[in-house]
Amino acid sequence: MNYLHTTKRELAKEKAHVEAQYDILKGKNLSLDLSRGKPSKKQTDTVMGMLTCLSTSEDCKSESGVDCLNYGVLDGIPEAKRIFSEIFDIPMKNIVIGGNSSLNMMYDAVARAMLYGVVGSEKPWAAQGKVKFLCPVPGYDRHFAVTQSLGVELINVDMTPTGPDMDTVERLVASDPLIKGMWCCPKYSNPDGYTYSDETVERLAAMKTAAPDFRIFWDNAYAIHDIYEDRADTLADIFKLCEKHGTQNRVFYFASTSKISFPGAGVAMLAASDENLAQIRPIMAIQTIGSDKINQIRHARYFKSAANILEHMKLLAGMIRPKFEIVNRVLTEELGGTGAAKWTDPNGGYFISLYVEKGCAKRTYQLCKEAGVVLTPVGATYPYGKDPDDSNIRIAPTFPTEGELEEAMNVLAVCVKLAVLEKLLG
Amino acid sequence: MNYLHTTKRELAKEKAHVEAQYDILKGKNLSLDLSRGKPSKKQTDTVMGMLTCLSTSEDCKSESGVDCLNYGVLDGIPEAKRIFSEIFDIPMKNIVIGGNSSLNMMYDAVARAMLYGVVGSEKPWAAQGKVKFLCPVPGYDRHFAVTQSLGVELINVDMTPTGPDMDTVERLVASDPLIKGMWCCPKYSNPDGYTYSDETVERLAAMKTAAPDFRIFWDNAYAIHDIYEDRADTLADIFKLCEKHGTQNRVFYFASTSKISFPGAGVAMLAASDENLAQIRPIMAIQTIGSDKINQIRHARYFKSAANILEHMKLLAGMIRPKFEIVNRVLTEELGGTGAAKWTDPNGGYFISLYVEKGCAKRTYQLCKEAGVVLTPVGATYPYGKDPDDSNIRIAPTFPTEGELEEAMNVLAVCVKLAVLEKLLG
Repeated sequence: MNYLHTTKRELAKEKAHVEAQYDILKGKNLSLDLSRGKPSKKQTDTVMGMLTCLSTSEDCKSESGVDCLNYGVLDGIPEAKRIFSEIFDIPMKNIVIGGNSSLNMMYDAVARAMLYGVVGSEKPWAAQGKVKFLCPVPGYDRHFAVTQSLGVELINVDMTPTGPDMDTVERLVASDPLIKGMWCCPKYSNPDGYTYSDETVERLAAMKTAAPDFRIFWDNAYAIHDIYEDRADTLADIFKLCEKHGTQNRVFYFASTSKISFPGAGVAMLAASDENLAQIRPIMAIQTIGSDKINQIRHARYFKSAANILEHMKLLAGMIRPKFEIVNRVLTEELGGTGAAKWTDPNGGYFISLYVEKGCAKRTYQLCKEAGVVLTPVGATYPYGKDPDDSNIRIAPTFPTEGELEEAMNVLAVCVKLAVLEKLLG
Repeated sequence: MNYLHTTKRELAKEKAHVEAQYDILKGKNLSLDLSRGKPSKKQTDTVMGMLTCLSTSEDCKSESGVDCLNYGVLDGIPEAKRIFSEIFDIPMKNIVIGGNSSLNMMYDAVARAMLYGVVGSEKPWAAQGKVKFLCPVPGYDRHFAVTQSLGVELINVDMTPTGPDMDTVERLVASDPLIKGMWCCPKYSNPDGYTYSDETVERLAAMKTAAPDFRIFWDNAYAIHDIYEDRADTLADIFKLCEKHGTQNRVFYFASTSKISFPGAGVAMLAASDENLAQIRPIMAIQTIGSDKINQIRHARYFKSAANILEHMKLLAGMIRPKFEIVNRVLTEELGGTGAAKWTDPNGGYFISLYVEKGCAKRTYQLCKEAGVVLTPVGATYPYGKDPDDSNIRIAPTFPTEGELEEAMNVLAVCVKLAVLEKLLG
């Protein structure tokens, strides 16, 4: 039944039916969580060997001769740089290894720009007025929160299946020198799971910016997080395209092993041009003696090669794939043809975006909550927590078991129907 | 022979003699390093068991129920907080666990104050004008570098065997609201090895500050780093004294296990008042998901208790003590009675301060360098790298072997003599 083309009377009948379903689900006193982009225990179980893979001081000696058990090395041991270098095809000299959190490296990069500026800045960003960032929406709440916290004004730009609406992006950055940056999650974007097309990436590299110190924050969090065997997205190499267009300094490139090894105990990296790193490294050298090299060499010794990491990702994909399939199946079975919602069907990443009828997302969230299913707060995928359409719901299926997920998805589907029916029946 | 009360003729004879010694040492083509406050390999060998002490997921489950192998927990697991709580007698609720570097936590604390202000700030520090920090001198170059890098003006205050010259400190902070902070390494100070007296700590807690948002950066890096069995310094509890004087928000208290477990791969902490943490935690929550909990629980499982850590420190003390004794013996044998230098004889910590005749430190450094002995750059122990007396040399004896240390100290002693004789003979 397509809710949007049905008589009120039919809708009222449907609503009574859905309410009955909802009451039954509510009576189950569930406690389920679809909000967290967290690997499951089954996933972390696959890398337990990492805990004990170092035991001797020889194990902890870097190929550079450095003893990882003692002080030294600001920006990472070669073994750690090589892993990222091979995965992303970025020269080792352009890679800086950080601590356990790429988010922390992003925060520090924005804070550093505010306090010191970046290559091309006449003054620190904080001294240039109210600086602004473009935020493809829906997007990652923690990206937006970093810039909001540091006093940056956030400007929404619509996401599309090929990336941010580039006509708008080009127009905005060309005209306003206070637009200093842009958040990008270019592959399997959070929450849509879209991957920027080659054309989008090239336009980002090529576009004229009014600010001489504009930076793209390229959070390639899901670079190797394909989940299907027969279909995967490919992402153009932004560094190579920037080189082609003479904009090498435009990109701060971030990644981590958080969704490869242990979440929150992995290794993060920042990659950037020679000039950018020549500005950043001396400031980092003031901030820290260096990151935990034992954890760096632990990752290098355990995985041994980027090729092994790609193999490992196939193992994880096998655990995540059935969950994405459950989400897609339940949504199709329950909401397909209702017109109440549409959703994305990504080839990888950690999220699925559900778009319910405008004005119904908050109500869906509330209904889910009352039935014991926690969703990512509605609005969180937009700057300032405001979804102008009140429509987007981020589904994070990786953490629950398949059984829990199926149950939670059934609740979600019923809540979507109920919220939309309530609206339509006014 | 006291150089300061000897005829030029006698000095010239002595100089010829010392030069001959120097030439012999130079001919040895030594390559020795007294510059680094680094634990020795023998020290890190004592904690190798830490590398393999976690192996199952049960090992990685915190008493709070949190899985340390996955995301979550902003400010540290209880096990990690408890270790610091017991060592420093600070309530767990006032402790925030960071990453591997207390220096990084200090940098972030200053950067945060610049960008957001602290409890009591009307505006962020950066918006209040050129803010200033008091720097007890000589002190730790990396402290000074953090504030210098972030645009803070540094003001020297003399160190004394009981801590910073408190008359000066009190006078300065009472009169200038732009003095926002002060660096303190209160126990076994870097580089003198002095410990603040109870009176000094109480005056720091009690003093009136013109700035309502003044902060003491209390880097208790050597809190449990006694090296003798029969003598140790004690440090008054600044939090308790602040409470007595109603200045609980005045202190940011830092420490780490870098010189307890693995240097550069330990666990760091910040402790502060409830109000301070209520301001800091939400900003930290923007900056990071949280620090590496696996390393936190690794430390907790390995050491089990603060009592075991104190036992472990005795083991390390046994390795460091002979080195401090070598330094003291060589200096006494070679420079005692010459008047060319004086030096400290700390009960703990990582450094000994050598004060050569004014105007002779740089020359001593240069002579040492030419003879293959690297010292901490002269001036590094002062803001902006400028020792106004050109006198202080920081000796870091822990990293070299005893044999290397003895050899390096002999070179240093000869270089001091030569530098002072050159000066006295004009």
